[in-house]
This record gives sequence, structure tokens and C-alpha cells, in this order.
Amino acid sequence: MAATIRRQIADFSRQKRVHTGSLLISLFGDAILPRGGGAWVGSLIRLLEPLGVNERSVRTAVFRLTKDEWLYSESSGRRSEYRLTPSGERRCADAARQIYAARAPAWDHRWRQILVLSAFTQKERDVLRRALFWQGFGALGAECFVHPSADLASVFDALLVEGLGGLLSGLMPLVAADTSLVGTAGNTDLVSRAWDLREMARDYAEFVSVYTPVLVEVRGDPLATADDEEAFLLRLLLIHDYRRLLLRDPELPEQLLPDDWPGESARLLCKDLYRRLLTPAERHLDRVLRTADGGACPPPQPAFGSRFAEDDLLTTV
Amino acid sequence: MAATIRRQIADFSRQKRVHTGSLLISLFGDAILPRGGGAWVGSLIRLLEPLGVNERSVRTAVFRLTKDEWLYSESSGRRSEYRLTPSGERRCADAARQIYAARAPAWDHRWRQILVLSAFTQKERDVLRRALFWQGFGALGAECFVHPSADLASVFDALLVEGLGGLLSGLMPLVAADTSLVGTAGNTDLVSRAWDLREMARDYAEFVSVYTPVLVEVRGDPLATADDEEAFLLRLLLIHDYRRLLLRDPELPEQLLPDDWPGESARLLCKDLYRRLLTPAERHLDRVLRTADGGACPPPQPAFGSRFAEDDLLTTV
Repeated sequence: MAATIRRQIADFSRQKRVHTGSLLISLFGDAILPRGGGAWVGSLIRLLEPLGVNERSVRTAVFRLTKDEWLYSESSGRRSEYRLTPSGERRCADAARQIYAARAPAWDHRWRQILVLSAFTQKERDVLRRALFWQGFGALGAECFVHPSADLASVFDALLVEGLGGLLSGLMPLVAADTSLVGTAGNTDLVSRAWDLREMARDYAEFVSVYTPVLVEVRGDPLATADDEEAFLLRLLLIHDYRRLLLRDPELPEQLLPDDWPGESARLLCKDLYRRLLTPAERHLDRVLRTADGGACPPPQPAFGSRFAEDDLLTTV
Repeated sequence: MAATIRRQIADFSRQKRVHTGSLLISLFGDAILPRGGGAWVGSLIRLLEPLGVNERSVRTAVFRLTKDEWLYSESSGRRSEYRLTPSGERRCADAARQIYAARAPAWDHRWRQILVLSAFTQKERDVLRRALFWQGFGALGAECFVHPSADLASVFDALLVEGLGGLLSGLMPLVAADTSLVGTAGNTDLVSRAWDLREMARDYAEFVSVYTPVLVEVRGDPLATADDEEAFLLRLLLIHDYRRLLLRDPELPEQLLPDDWPGESARLLCKDLYRRLLTPAERHLDRVLRTADGGACPPPQPAFGSRFAEDDLLTTV
């Protein structure tokens, strides 16, 4: 494999603080969910080892994800398997709709709103603001959060899972529409007030600048990039980085974004690179991914092949 | 006329600070709008004189109302007539729909919202909050105002007339609906957070306690209350007091109000008393109200008779 690709993997391994839990969520959502949703813990350790994640980190992380109801464990003899819970599966599927979308969603011109109606403590407010920030919400003062498309039921479900269930009875979910009166502020003003898009734009631009040389290399010499394991690792890092960008991206409709918005370049780059890495990466998973009884995980579901594909161009990979 | 009624009129006359402008708006909306919308300034002085309002106050007040585009003046020889402007007429008509409604309006389950999107100064925020308070809006923090039924175009028009046009480009009007998720806050929580209904309830209760003995007197001895001028003055004070209560009443739908809400008693009391006073009061207006050229104002429009009447019980008075 060429130098840029190897450097990308080495850079990740050298990071001081790897959030193994977050990386495992990327792995489950991207690679394990389409293959039945569960895997032997030994496979997980083996898959992440080349990224500098050790066995102890993986075991600690799956234990925490089990506590947080993302995963549950099943044993077969002395071997443990970790599987996505129904709510973990749903959350991965929700995220997947956004991550592997071929294009930005159309907007229904409705704002999703959460109003704060209780006198929360400052600490509760901070925790709430942070949790909603990570779900892409913008804030207007301390009492009003907005998002152009969030599924409010999933948002509240996520708050519940994050241990913020106690705040729910003080939060009111609404759906609102601009009434567009002459001379008053409108949707674009709401965007500039509720989000700091500069930081988001910077992060997208960085993603593009990191992965563009990788794509150039993969495109330039497809045979040299045929190392299955490195293709898998690169695919995992690509989706992990892209997923975390999308997490706090409000996915504003095109008409409300600045002209030079780099989110769409990032999407196209990610799509192109992902589809080129998929076949060798899946071969690696075929070899390594096992259930607790030592059997192979099921092959990917047919819908898997439509990731990043236009609706009218469904293809299998 | 009986003692209670006379005391009510005398009480008003003894007030230290009578807002003559506000009283004139009640007079124009209640008595002059249905009779063509204009009157000779001498008639206005004559009508208000028994309430302790002197000529100078009336002349100052009509001058101010002209500056504020409620009224405009027309001259006929040396006599001036003051007429409602088109916008003054519209505002009186809007208020009349609320004042003379036979019952509280049905709710469409939509909240009218105004979001503050500009970094206003503290002074601008205070002025805005006050202006919206007087239009019945509740506040959630400093950035979000709500009302169950306001006509947002009229609200912004009123802000413009009050000299707050400079703030409009920083205000976003929306219409929003509760999405009613299990375990989250809803419409009734929004009401308790955005309004202090106790003060409003106290003011309604006071209105009821002041006008109930008056109604008892008028009901008990209709012939003794046949003094046309006193009937007119009492009717004007009744509508003036009731109008100012309604001004800042958000007119919350019944299902969102406390069980013992006194607003409906106030409405029924006002309706009963108003209809009993109407005929003698109109006789007084027939005699006193003149245009600038000395002619009689037109008789009341037919729609006038339906004030406070159920839709299916339209009567002329």
C-alpha cells in the first residue's frame, strides 16, 4: 500500500487518546450491523489491533457500551459475543441513513424545536446544551434549541440513553415554520444566529484535505491498494471521521448554507473513497469476523450495496 | 341613577392620572367607529367632560394620536374633526373582534412565536418585551415569545406604529405546534412557564367585583337607570376597563386555563351590562356627536347590533 494511506493509519495509531467506544460504534454500524449485528470479542480485538488499540481497551469499551445499552453480550462456552441491542441497532440505522446518503436531504421547511420549560440548574443546562450540540442542534439563548430535520422522538430517546431522562419532563418538542412577513428575520437569519458554521466548515475542509491525497493514491494505482486489511482499516477510519463530523452537523438544507460550504465536497469524497475500498475491506471481514461459536458472521445484507448510491442507481458491490 | 353607578363614574373622575389618549381610543373604537369613524373635537370634549377630562387634555391627546397615526384631522371652516386613519380603523376593528366576542375563541393548537435573532441592546430588549407583553405574549427567556392566537402581521404592524420598526429585521415570526411525545413537557407546561396568570386573574376578579354591583342595580331597576348620559359614561368606562384587561390577556384556550379562571365571568358580566346600557347610551350619542360642519354623525352600522351576540342570535339594538 502506498505511503499516504499507510501514514493515515499510523497517524491514528499514534493518537494519545483514542475513544475506543466511539470507534467500536463506527465498527458495529459500518461493518457488523449489515452482517447480523454481533461478533466474537476476539474478532473485535483482532480487527482493531493494527490501529494501536489493545485488548484491554476493547474489553473496557464493550463493557461500557453494554452498560449504556448499545450492546449486550451472549456467551457460547468460554467465548463472549457482543451484539447490538434493538435500541443500538436503531441508532446505528438512523445514523446510517445520514452517513451513507447519496445527497443532502430535501428540506420540508419546518424547524424542529426544543423549548426548555423547567428551571434547570446550570449544570443540567450545560449537559443538555452539550448533548443537543452533538445532535446538531443550534441554540437561541438558553431556552430554545432548533434543528432543521431532526427526528424529535429519536433525539429524546438519545437523551434518555445518555442518562438525561430526568430532564425530559422539562423539555417541550415542537415543529415550527417561518411565516415570512415582509421586513422581519427569516430562516437564513436563524441559521446565522443559532450555529457557528465556521468551525464546522473548518472541520469539513480538514477532512477533505486529509482524505483527498488518499483518494488520489487509491484512484491512481488500484492494484497497489489491494491489501485487504489496510483497505478495511482505512474504510473504518474514513467512516469514523465522517460519522463524527455528521454527528454535530445540523445538515442544513442547501438554500440555507454559505455558497462555499465544504460539506458536499466531503460527502462526494467520502462516497468515492468508500466505494473503492469496499470490496477488499469486505474480504478482510470475511476472513476475520467470527461469532462466539467460531462460525462466520452472515454475509452483508443486500441493502448494504446501496450505500452512497443514488436511488435510481442501486448496485451491489 | 342609583348610587353604585354614580360612584363608579365619580371614582374615575377622581383618578390622579387619566390616560386621555387611551380613553379616546376606547371612545373611538366603541362609539365612533360604528358611526363613520370621525367626530368634531367639540363633541369629544363634551362627551368626556363629565369624567373630569378637561378640554386641554382632549386637545393634547388627539394631537398625540394624530402623530401616532391613530387619527387624522379634517377642518371645516374653523372647526376640526378627528377621524380614525385606515390603520387606526383596522386596529380598532381587530380589538373589537376580541372585545365584543360572545365567547372565547376556539384554538387551532398552533403557537405563534417570535424569536429574537439580533443582539439587541438591553434597552431594546426591555422595550420589545414590554410591547409584546401588552399584546399578550408570554416570554421564554430573552429570545423567545409565544402567543396562542395572535395575528403576527398585526403584531409587527403594531410594533412599527409604536416606533419599534428598527427591531423588525431582528425578529423572526413562526407558527409552531406541540409534537406531544410521551414524557416530555407540553402546552400546559408552556403556559405556566411563559405567563404569570395570577396577576391577570387578580385583575379580572377585581373587574368582576367592581361591576357586579353595578349590574345588580341596572338589572333591579331599569327605569331608574334611564339617564342617557350616565348610561353612556358607564358603558365607556366598562369597555375601557375591559379593553385594557384584554389587551394583555393572551386569551388562552379554555383547556390551558386554570379551572377557576375569572376571565369568562368577566366576559359574561361585561356582555350583560353592555347590552343593557346600549340603547340609552346611543340616544346620548345621537344628541351630542357631531361632525365638523355641525351635522349629525351617521347612525350605527347594522353589524354594531351583533356585539356580544351569539352568531345564531343576531339582534339589532
